[in-house]
Amino acid sequence: MKYQLFSDEYFMNEALKQATKAFYEKEIPIGAVVVINNIIIAKAHNLTERLSDTTAHAEMLAITSASEYLGAKYLDNATIFVTIEPCIMCVGALYWSKISKIVYGATDNKRGFHKIETVLNKKSNSLIHKKTDVKSGILEQECALLMKNFFLEKRKKWVNKKTN
Amino acid sequence: MKYQLFSDEYFMNEALKQATKAFYEKEIPIGAVVVINNIIIAKAHNLTERLSDTTAHAEMLAITSASEYLGAKYLDNATIFVTIEPCIMCVGALYWSKISKIVYGATDNKRGFHKIETVLNKKSNSLIHKKTDVKSGILEQECALLMKNFFLEKRKKWVNKKTN
Repeated sequence: MKYQLFSDEYFMNEALKQATKAFYEKEIPIGAVVVINNIIIAKAHNLTERLSDTTAHAEMLAITSASEYLGAKYLDNATIFVTIEPCIMCVGALYWSKISKIVYGATDNKRGFHKIETVLNKKSNSLIHKKTDVKSGILEQECALLMKNFFLEKRKKWVNKKTN
Repeated sequence: MKYQLFSDEYFMNEALKQATKAFYEKEIPIGAVVVINNIIIAKAHNLTERLSDTTAHAEMLAITSASEYLGAKYLDNATIFVTIEPCIMCVGALYWSKISKIVYGATDNKRGFHKIETVLNKKSNSLIHKKTDVKSGILEQECALLMKNFFLEKRKKWVNKKTN
């Protein structure tokens, strides 16, 4: 995006709406939107439960949806806004897509790509395409809170099941 | 698979058939099959061109297809046979699927997961799920040759285009 008319927070809020939908559908509450020239061309949230498919992460569905909208393989003018730090699979997919920018909300210390990326610490081995910028921490607390509540609920249900 | 009735070469040949299909469809010639108890439950080849989608790798399509067949998210009793070493995206997807075994043919020194995995060199950071075994080198030459010919053809066409 040469001129970004809306703030990162605006687009992250749109991704958060997707994540909230996922929350109420009992999916892991992660949402993503893909933006080109200030227009959202794809929206998605995690669908691993409904589709019984571990690959149905918000980013994967958003990439496929954006490519379909454009009729093109590469997203080199696009920015993806995603509520949680992408995992290895998703960052691998974003690499292939040659996306211009990745903006994410909260970190994922367990399965986020940074854990691996920092060990690599070499440009030649980076998980991120050399044409891709990365920004993080946008609406971090809101993005993290949704995940925290989701897993808290899940744990509660699990404990109740065990004790009943 | 507790008792494997057919050899690894047999199943890799099935994956090679998929790769050959891809070759003639002008897709990157990589094929994969997913096997449970000696039965192939999913077959796929690269479809990035036809679908205009950089995520449409053979392994990704095979995982989704296998999950759909089983009606289950996890492939913990399954083996995937894939003609070329999986990339970061695909190995990330195979991690989430908890697949029992990955068998691949030829290495991919440029974008295969091993390049990263060897740098990590730590169990806690491995790209491979702790329940997943990995085997390689099955029909290595045949798998590699298909790729070599594909890119040779592609380069020839590119050179002809440039000189005409």
